[in-house]
Amino acid sequence: MRGNTFGKLFSITTFGESHGVALGVVVDGVPAGLEFKLEDLQELLDRRRPGRLNVTTARNEADQAEVLSGIFEGKTLGTPIAVIVRNTNQRSQDYDKEMARPGHGDITFTQKFGHRDHRGGGRASGRETLARVAGGYFAGLVLKEVQFKAFISKIAKFESGDIDPFSTQFKKLHFGDPEKEEEIEKYLLDLKKNGESAGGKVRLHIRGLSAGLGEPVFDKLKADLAKAMTSIGSCVGVTFGIGEDFTDTPGSVATKSRENFGGIEGGISNGEELVMTLFFRAPSTVGQKAKEGRHDPCILPRVLPVVEAMAKLTIADHQMRQNAYQI
Amino acid sequence: MRGNTFGKLFSITTFGESHGVALGVVVDGVPAGLEFKLEDLQELLDRRRPGRLNVTTARNEADQAEVLSGIFEGKTLGTPIAVIVRNTNQRSQDYDKEMARPGHGDITFTQKFGHRDHRGGGRASGRETLARVAGGYFAGLVLKEVQFKAFISKIAKFESGDIDPFSTQFKKLHFGDPEKEEEIEKYLLDLKKNGESAGGKVRLHIRGLSAGLGEPVFDKLKADLAKAMTSIGSCVGVTFGIGEDFTDTPGSVATKSRENFGGIEGGISNGEELVMTLFFRAPSTVGQKAKEGRHDPCILPRVLPVVEAMAKLTIADHQMRQNAYQI
Amino acid sequence: MRGNTFGKLFSITTFGESHGVALGVVVDGVPAGLEFKLEDLQELLDRRRPGRLNVTTARNEADQAEVLSGIFEGKTLGTPIAVIVRNTNQRSQDYDKEMARPGHGDITFTQKFGHRDHRGGGRASGRETLARVAGGYFAGLVLKEVQFKAFISKIAKFESGDIDPFSTQFKKLHFGDPEKEEEIEKYLLDLKKNGESAGGKVRLHIRGLSAGLGEPVFDKLKADLAKAMTSIGSCVGVTFGIGEDFTDTPGSVATKSRENFGGIEGGISNGEELVMTLFFRAPSTVGQKAKEGRHDPCILPRVLPVVEAMAKLTIADHQMRQNAYQI
Amino acid sequence: MRGNTFGKLFSITTFGESHGVALGVVVDGVPAGLEFKLEDLQELLDRRRPGRLNVTTARNEADQAEVLSGIFEGKTLGTPIAVIVRNTNQRSQDYDKEMARPGHGDITFTQKFGHRDHRGGGRASGRETLARVAGGYFAGLVLKEVQFKAFISKIAKFESGDIDPFSTQFKKLHFGDPEKEEEIEKYLLDLKKNGESAGGKVRLHIRGLSAGLGEPVFDKLKADLAKAMTSIGSCVGVTFGIGEDFTDTPGSVATKSRENFGGIEGGISNGEELVMTLFFRAPSTVGQKAKEGRHDPCILPRVLPVVEAMAKLTIADHQMRQNAYQI
Repeated sequence: MRGNTFGKLFSITTFGESHGVALGVVVDGVPAGLEFKLEDLQELLDRRRPGRLNVTTARNEADQAEVLSGIFEGKTLGTPIAVIVRNTNQRSQDYDKEMARPGHGDITFTQKFGHRDHRGGGRASGRETLARVAGGYFAGLVLKEVQFKAFISKIAKFESGDIDPFSTQFKKLHFGDPEKEEEIEKYLLDLKKNGESAGGKVRLHIRGLSAGLGEPVFDKLKADLAKAMTSIGSCVGVTFGIGEDFTDTPGSVATKSRENFGGIEGGISNGEELVMTLFFRAPSTVGQKAKEGRHDPCILPRVLPVVEAMAKLTIADHQMRQNAYQI
Repeated sequence: MRGNTFGKLFSITTFGESHGVALGVVVDGVPAGLEFKLEDLQELLDRRRPGRLNVTTARNEADQAEVLSGIFEGKTLGTPIAVIVRNTNQRSQDYDKEMARPGHGDITFTQKFGHRDHRGGGRASGRETLARVAGGYFAGLVLKEVQFKAFISKIAKFESGDIDPFSTQFKKLHFGDPEKEEEIEKYLLDLKKNGESAGGKVRLHIRGLSAGLGEPVFDKLKADLAKAMTSIGSCVGVTFGIGEDFTDTPGSVATKSRENFGGIEGGISNGEELVMTLFFRAPSTVGQKAKEGRHDPCILPRVLPVVEAMAKLTIADHQMRQNAYQI
Repeated sequence: MRGNTFGKLFSITTFGESHGVALGVVVDGVPAGLEFKLEDLQELLDRRRPGRLNVTTARNEADQAEVLSGIFEGKTLGTPIAVIVRNTNQRSQDYDKEMARPGHGDITFTQKFGHRDHRGGGRASGRETLARVAGGYFAGLVLKEVQFKAFISKIAKFESGDIDPFSTQFKKLHFGDPEKEEEIEKYLLDLKKNGESAGGKVRLHIRGLSAGLGEPVFDKLKADLAKAMTSIGSCVGVTFGIGEDFTDTPGSVATKSRENFGGIEGGISNGEELVMTLFFRAPSTVGQKAKEGRHDPCILPRVLPVVEAMAKLTIADHQMRQNAYQI
Repeated sequence: MRGNTFGKLFSITTFGESHGVALGVVVDGVPAGLEFKLEDLQELLDRRRPGRLNVTTARNEADQAEVLSGIFEGKTLGTPIAVIVRNTNQRSQDYDKEMARPGHGDITFTQKFGHRDHRGGGRASGRETLARVAGGYFAGLVLKEVQFKAFISKIAKFESGDIDPFSTQFKKLHFGDPEKEEEIEKYLLDLKKNGESAGGKVRLHIRGLSAGLGEPVFDKLKADLAKAMTSIGSCVGVTFGIGEDFTDTPGSVATKSRENFGGIEGGISNGEELVMTLFFRAPSTVGQKAKEGRHDPCILPRVLPVVEAMAKLTIADHQMRQNAYQI
């Protein structure tokens, strides 16, 4: 009830502060007998790591995953899988100097818990998403036939049109219009120099989803996906299908094509490609790190594996819910 | 796990098909000793009722609430409160003729359950929101000091600016700019005649919220509110604070004012006014009813009490979660 | 979290005070397309009803079930099924005179909720088990191949040996040794006259259970069955397999026969017949009703359908949990 | 839903196989600001460790706790606390030779998961209780004013009478009649030599419990305690208050003294001392270890800290549930 668990039948419980001993995740509900590859898990964690792109923050954690349980002789046991990543850089001196960052949780954490973990945000740090990505790896194991692809459709003033992400050859930033990446990268490096940062949009496509996932009333697939995505720190909004365009499209036009609904009707997947859009705000840029240009001016490239992980976790859980009732 | 329960400490479990015997809700977690007034509950249900406005659907259910349990001598007992509303119009002949309506769940329900309840949508009908409104009444009893106000900020092409809804004198439609209501109503009646319908936006303000509500990681207040709102049938998106504007506002500008965050930082309420925006699609207009002009061209006025109810339910639950840890 | 819901994938939420308007249950998780027969449900409720046996209480409620939702054209819809039973006798005058009954909850309810519903126990009354029995009926629908049989193995000083309940021709009381029923009935009528009451033991057999139900650690099948049974008001203990005999049987002897374990090993069903024993205390006999001989001197015959219902609910839930992970 | 989490508001999620890399627990719901002492936690783990008594198994794990998160500068942060204990002895050669042990889960695990972790029982091993004890330590932090005391009231043929455990000077085995310990120890060593083992009873007293804990219907305090205790591997039964004596005590006698009910009435704590009895079977003694005399002939002394831990976890959770509704 402290909200460190996500999912019901397929669930993850995460722990760890950004500057504590370790972060980790307990993945429960993974069926027995699935093949596990540490290198695949590690690759996902590396995608999330800051420092991969020039434009992301310099903090270069190793983020080496260690599996403590649930795997034996290369296969899942059906028991809970615990994965931890030790924090190699636990110094909190840098952060002691930091002032509370608006929008970031520094103030509200104090309001909630009566104290503040002044070590780089504690649980509020984006570093907790590492555990989500690890969990998402295992969700992926049970969804072999489903493809998840998130890409950046907007960074600051740069926007890409609607594309088919499964046939697009993305570049480093995974921007929807790869041609513009050079220009964007220059723009972001400029932001960084100025201690500035940018927000944007991410578009998520899910292909190969079976029809019938999601429950009719409160646990609609869109509702659970909306929760999954807005639980990511800087996600400030989410829309489904044609999204905001729905608000001024007459009913007859909107319903002319099933595609407009983005793969969900009546809250339940219809077997078509699921499409949703996420809005992200720019990271807070107050404090010493920003002043010294050590901050991340745009977290969107790093957020993509997190978005995909949250989608996998949500879908795996709903798939199992649907299985449960097949008698 | 079939998603008919919402909330953990303060929860509602709803039941009933649109053309079955009755709809109802079991509200669990209401503390003992709170004063109950049937007329207040009934008034909320009436606000949600179709037919209240000229522009809404002609189906004129009485929606008379009957309390079966949990109330004794005008006070809550602390035991579960069951409220039912009998369906006076259980004929499904009208609906038999209806074709499956895109976006509405008619097709996906069949995909999920292997059959279709052809009586006006069954659980997929907007009529299930009646149970949410009843539940929201009781959530309101435990949040005496918090004010919830939802209003329409956009209908089709009509938009209102940012307003303070607590000091605005709303008219019948609760549109953000009351001066425009006459024009909008004319527009909607035209839509109705043409078998057409409109979408729009709803803005929700919550005032008087205590700081510290919401949990740091998965159960952020924004995540649970996003789920609550997108669980409403035709809600296709949700944003917080300045919403989409965040996506092209530089970090230094966005963080300049705490107000931009809409009362939530790091996923936790900061004690300021909470502000969020909901996107709604136009109702599906396929079928006999639309042809005969008996459909509702815009459900937004009726959706307002539902939005407020879902907000109350979410906040009451989080308030209790926060209480639990005060030792 | 007020504990009015039992089960996770297959769940019941119950409501209603013994002297309120109605009692009821919302059954969630029933798959679509199962055949429903009101008369079968009613028969189970009648078995639980006081007044069926001479020796049970005179309060003769009709306990007529009304289905409000989830059933259409004689089949389950997959949506929540609400069943209510109206209280025909809502007078609480009798009870106003009653003093608080030790062991019964009258005092602790006041301690918990800060007030007392003086109408015959409110939620603490055995009448709430009616909703469990209704829920159990639907659990039975998904467990067609499993047989549940509870019988009385002890009443006061009368004890029956181990029997096969599936091949026993039970009499009215469902006592394990039918020959002794006449004697027991006489004994109970004597108790009644003296304002006295008796406890005893119930033995439950479950046949046809598939192997592999139950989870390895906290949700062992025996743990969830223990909870299910001790949640019945007057159940004061539960044992599995050879029960107390285990406490002085050497390991080598105990493990010689799988039968000793009563169908559960390592917390998981092994495909053999499940056997457990429940201990019940005598009902409290303080108060006007006992004085006037209108009380029930032994609730065991009426408790049998409740025990079977709780077993069905627990097994159905675990069966669905097991289904969920079959990918 | 794989049953590796216990508790709702105060919860533990445990992981780890007996011969895997590590066992661990994530404790969620611990309020912020409580003082943490590693030595106190370690002491509890040591009490559970085999090898502490002559009569327990020779496997001498260090069981050194490492805290990964949730603690900062000697205080709880309010974030999830992860504690792990690495397995120093991961060799599974011994166990490869073992045959499946009846009652132990070796067979049912294969039935459930379709494979068998042949390394000493995997999750079915008693070693998983280590994580429960660690979790119980933290539950104890929020229940400073409540005292928990479990002792052995029966080993094989040896029985102790009813005692006040809070004023008893226990010896090594914590048997209810300390005078008999020498004799019992001799008896157990004899059992060990013969590859034999013994069961028995544990009695648990809880003093200082506030009135009003437990919920009226399904989550009665006795129901949740029954589940907690029977979730311990070799616990085969549980009774409350005078337990089995209830089954042949007339109502008027049973209700004469509130003490008979063992501190729970109507499922809710009444503020008196809570008393319950647990039945344990003898450990399985099939296999190489028993043959070589390396097995534990009686696990009861080691089970006491596990029983106390499960009680603390259950009570802490219910205390928080009760807090939640104090508005």
